[in-house]
Amino acid sequence: MLNFSEQPHKRKNLLTGEYILVSPHRSKRPWQGQVEDLAPDNRPQYDPKCYLCPGNERADGTQNPAYQDSFVFVNDFSALLEDTSLTQFDEENLLIAESERGICKVISFSPRHDLTLPEMRTTEIKAVVDLWQREFNDLAQNEWIKYIQIFENKGSIMGCSNPHPHGQIWAQSSVPVEIQKESVQQQAYYEKHGRTLLQDYLVLELKKEERIIVDNTHFVALVPFWAAWPYETMIISKRAVPSIADFTEEEKEDLAKTLQELTIRYDNIFKTSFPYSAGMHQAPVNTDDVSAWHWHMHFYPPLLRSATVKKFMVGYEMLASPQRDITPEQAATTLKQQATIHYKAQKN
Amino acid sequence: MLNFSEQPHKRKNLLTGEYILVSPHRSKRPWQGQVEDLAPDNRPQYDPKCYLCPGNERADGTQNPAYQDSFVFVNDFSALLEDTSLTQFDEENLLIAESERGICKVISFSPRHDLTLPEMRTTEIKAVVDLWQREFNDLAQNEWIKYIQIFENKGSIMGCSNPHPHGQIWAQSSVPVEIQKESVQQQAYYEKHGRTLLQDYLVLELKKEERIIVDNTHFVALVPFWAAWPYETMIISKRAVPSIADFTEEEKEDLAKTLQELTIRYDNIFKTSFPYSAGMHQAPVNTDDVSAWHWHMHFYPPLLRSATVKKFMVGYEMLASPQRDITPEQAATTLKQQATIHYKAQKN
Ligand SMILES: O=P(O)(O)O[C@H]1O[C@H](CO)[C@@H](O)[C@H](O)[C@H]1O
Ligand SMILES: O=P(O)(O)O[C@H]1O[C@H](CO)[C@@H](O)[C@H](O)[C@H]1O
Repeated sequence: MLNFSEQPHKRKNLLTGEYILVSPHRSKRPWQGQVEDLAPDNRPQYDPKCYLCPGNERADGTQNPAYQDSFVFVNDFSALLEDTSLTQFDEENLLIAESERGICKVISFSPRHDLTLPEMRTTEIKAVVDLWQREFNDLAQNEWIKYIQIFENKGSIMGCSNPHPHGQIWAQSSVPVEIQKESVQQQAYYEKHGRTLLQDYLVLELKKEERIIVDNTHFVALVPFWAAWPYETMIISKRAVPSIADFTEEEKEDLAKTLQELTIRYDNIFKTSFPYSAGMHQAPVNTDDVSAWHWHMHFYPPLLRSATVKKFMVGYEMLASPQRDITPEQAATTLKQQATIHYKAQKN
Repeated sequence: MLNFSEQPHKRKNLLTGEYILVSPHRSKRPWQGQVEDLAPDNRPQYDPKCYLCPGNERADGTQNPAYQDSFVFVNDFSALLEDTSLTQFDEENLLIAESERGICKVISFSPRHDLTLPEMRTTEIKAVVDLWQREFNDLAQNEWIKYIQIFENKGSIMGCSNPHPHGQIWAQSSVPVEIQKESVQQQAYYEKHGRTLLQDYLVLELKKEERIIVDNTHFVALVPFWAAWPYETMIISKRAVPSIADFTEEEKEDLAKTLQELTIRYDNIFKTSFPYSAGMHQAPVNTDDVSAWHWHMHFYPPLLRSATVKKFMVGYEMLASPQRDITPEQAATTLKQQATIHYKAQKN
């Protein structure tokens, strides 16, 4: 019998087909290494120097409108450009490259400079979900766009250079590697079983309950059995749909609630604004049959022991395989124990 | 024609088969995000509280010998344990796990607490290479060991919790995912061409010269065409051998020289002790034919713009694909321009 909380072991990530290493006993290791700065948590509602606040000027000279809920624009420092022509490069089949065309957008989640998703009202988060869906649909109108990555980097530790609550969308002319992996695994499962991989996975997880954090009518948030980051989670839609384009009003409301509850639980663990990179994985667009694809959203948060001590995915992890110290089940227990009211809103 | 220094494009990593995204124009983006602390650079030669200094006591109560060059011991907080029994776990083919057996060792590179590889003498680095080879050979004697990862995390920004110069070896009972990927790609190439992939890649790179940093009798250090980290490099042996076990005395001397020159160039870029995770990739052990495998060593350094501003591999990178801002050719040019004498040893 494999004892998950005692024995070093590896677990298979069903979505990528790749294994991660779990070293449960290693959490006893003392930490004498780098400690992160805690970002000051006293931002004003409006910052005259923030390029995301309503009415302010951006890098290219444009003025933001006096927007009321969320607001979207093309990134002034886009990593991908729309006017790139598609060409290939191949030298002796050893140096292989291809130009990439794309559109990068920034979405401000709120006119308020001082908020984050867990501190926003459900209706305000719902407005963000609406905008994501609208943007996804609009971008997919461009036939050359093959994949749309919706994501958020939260916290300076995750490379976020502006604390104003915002996310990004990168839409591009080819399907990136992580999506390709998930396509392969989901396709293989679908062909064999006639159901999506996450549909069956969800049934099993809901039966076991161990790793479930949020469970409402349309969505589940859980710690995947193969989580690599200490408090990694995944939101899965109960209905097997390929993308956010398919969500009904009711589903979008439930997604807003799920995002709110999950991020409140994160913030409550260490009573800090919990950093993470999060993003949806969904079917490529303008492509063949995508019925094997099941919409989901990954949360990759770096914190391990406290608000200032993170997990380093370094030497062994970069060269060999991802590795974690606490088990996914321990992380799930901690997340489940948290209150669903944000610590800042709690009366002492 | 693909213009590498102007057009966003993707490049194929020949060793993994996966693409990375290059956004050359994006290096113009101003940086207002997280700035790293500069570790103080005034360490004593001996630190009574360091668990790696000669004569000091370790976590388990053992006393380090008064060692003269390098020194190796089993990690007091090993992520893998030798007494793990091998068992499998499978629930409905959806929760899949397997125990993992292993040995984790720590190698102190020098009795001197205040040094790092680029500040050590070639003969001292050669002693480290000797020890790596000896350890590799010894560990491979255990038939249950299938792969041996030799690596170093340098700098607190890379999760290194003790500045005393040291590296690690994790030997384990299965072949980790990154090695599996490289096996697949190298095997396919070898079957088709009867030569190793890196052999042919090296010939082409030596002809082009553009990305070559160090070139001596037995080794080349270069910025791979598909580098993901800003100043990522790779050391490749000129002789196509599967592992460090095959290196002759002369080759080990040249490897020491290559390590020295490459790390000196790193330190000189920003006049700082350049952080990185580095490690060898070599053939699995106690396995079938490994003639397709060609020894090499990866350097993944995080710094991008200065000693305190790193590249964040976050949202898009974690969810979609690795992404870089400066081109590999620009990075190679910067590395080539550096002096081969360490900045601390230079007279002003
Ligand atoms: O074993 P160390 O040096 O304490 O730990 C360091 O290297 C390990 C292997 O890459 C990582 O798993 C840890 O996150 C990192 O802090
Ligand atoms: O575009 P931003 O927010 O300035 O940049 C941030 O997110 C990007 C996408 O994950 C990363 O490439 C950058 O390294 C990170 O700093």
